Amino acid sequence: LDIGLWYIDVSVMSAVKQEKQVSSKSTPTDLVTEADHQVEELIISTLREKYPSHGFIGEESSAAGVTCELTDDPTWIIDPIDGTCNFVHSFPMVAVSIGFAVRKELELGVIYHCFDGTLYTARKGHGAFCNGVRLQVSKEKDVSKALILTEIGAKRDPATLDIFLGNMKKLLSAPTHGVRIIGSSTLALCHIASGAAEAYYQYGLHCWDIAAAAVIIREAGGYVIDTTGGPLDLMSRRVVAAGTRQIADYVVKQLQPINYGRDDLT
Amino acid sequence: LDIGLWYIDVSVMSAVKQEKQVSSKSTPTDLVTEADHQVEELIISTLREKYPSHGFIGEESSAAGVTCELTDDPTWIIDPIDGTCNFVHSFPMVAVSIGFAVRKELELGVIYHCFDGTLYTARKGHGAFCNGVRLQVSKEKDVSKALILTEIGAKRDPATLDIFLGNMKKLLSAPTHGVRIIGSSTLALCHIASGAAEAYYQYGLHCWDIAAAAVIIREAGGYVIDTTGGPLDLMSRRVVAAGTRQIADYVVKQLQPINYGRDDLT
Repeated sequence: LDIGLWYIDVSVMSAVKQEKQVSSKSTPTDLVTEADHQVEELIISTLREKYPSHGFIGEESSAAGVTCELTDDPTWIIDPIDGTCNFVHSFPMVAVSIGFAVRKELELGVIYHCFDGTLYTARKGHGAFCNGVRLQVSKEKDVSKALILTEIGAKRDPATLDIFLGNMKKLLSAPTHGVRIIGSSTLALCHIASGAAEAYYQYGLHCWDIAAAAVIIREAGGYVIDTTGGPLDLMSRRVVAAGTRQIADYVVKQLQPINYGRDDLT
Repeated sequence: LDIGLWYIDVSVMSAVKQEKQVSSKSTPTDLVTEADHQVEELIISTLREKYPSHGFIGEESSAAGVTCELTDDPTWIIDPIDGTCNFVHSFPMVAVSIGFAVRKELELGVIYHCFDGTLYTARKGHGAFCNGVRLQVSKEKDVSKALILTEIGAKRDPATLDIFLGNMKKLLSAPTHGVRIIGSSTLALCHIASGAAEAYYQYGLHCWDIAAAAVIIREAGGYVIDTTGGPLDLMSRRVVAAGTRQIADYVVKQLQPINYGRDDLT
């Protein structure tokens, strides 16, 4: 999959070193920079040249009003800079995520960790890899030995925070080994694929945070499902991912939902 | 400061790849592995050979019953594997931390990020460096633009979790840009030194988590103080660190304390 990742890397990392023009989108904590726009344009224009008939769903195009709807067409689903808040701070967990779906089925996933050059790739039926080394999820079934990852989401009103922190309390009380919040959904999901953590859950992420990672985790032997325990709904802004079905089911049972609406109804 | 870091790195990283013998110390989530013991012994024996008259405070020696008391003697303060829970999961935030105090004053700090080879160093009055590049804290004074780091601590009883999560809620509600929990106090503190985050606070860490980092942050221009706003008490198991006094003071005002006792009274 030669999509000019080297050039994308140079673009993102040179942007890290620059003074950033930061603005906010849905909430004051939902940040966007010039680099998010530039990297998304770069990825889409590169892919469109190679695949002129394909569709595109991108974080910044969607924020700019392009309809976010997954059709049967071959579609690239792109987060140009996942972890924009980290990026603004040069906090070193920032990734580019590119997923690809055909007839609404996720087929390819590529996630690039911009700060350390790690490249996660997967193609449906062909396994998942990190810099060419095959990935395998954790086979741990005992939640008391699980490391759990989550992200806070953009909504910070007291009622939402109470639900978010209540969910975290339940998962810390299980007891589990702990909870981590690194500020990048896609890199957290890559840690599930690599077996460095047992489960991830989040309300408030988007289809471009899940698309590539879902292929990578499934090809590493893991589960990516809805927070209710049913099949993943890519547009539902919620997800549970885990190495084993047992841990996924445990996490599902603990969660009180936070309603972020849908990606395809905005 | 030639203390055989290359050899320590090989020891830690080869241990990452092995099946780990995990046991717990104070609580079921306070983990220790064979590697923690081996790396601490390696560091102390290397240093003792060079400096036979110096004292040593180490995480595993203290757990084994060696008195944890800082005297006027030149003393090395060592965390052989900070982020032991991460280490157990191969979650890639694990560090070796070595501080050095003379007449109870912190003089040197070395923190080595085992997974990416980053080396943070500082000597009092001579600046702080990351792989030789000078470090500078964030000069942000506006808490609404701050990224805040914390760690959960080993106590997971409901009352402690309520205070921990209550503190997190206050810092998320400020509003700040966000809160991150990476699972390594020393690496989180290094992010304060590098300016990647504005503040760190924690109840429940130990002198060996703070000693090296305090020198590195101060030499990068930052503040390392007590959670009450007073001077740092290395043995008090609590800390606030920040790039600016304004952000430090803001964090201090939000915090409800969690009592973890003292390192020198156990």
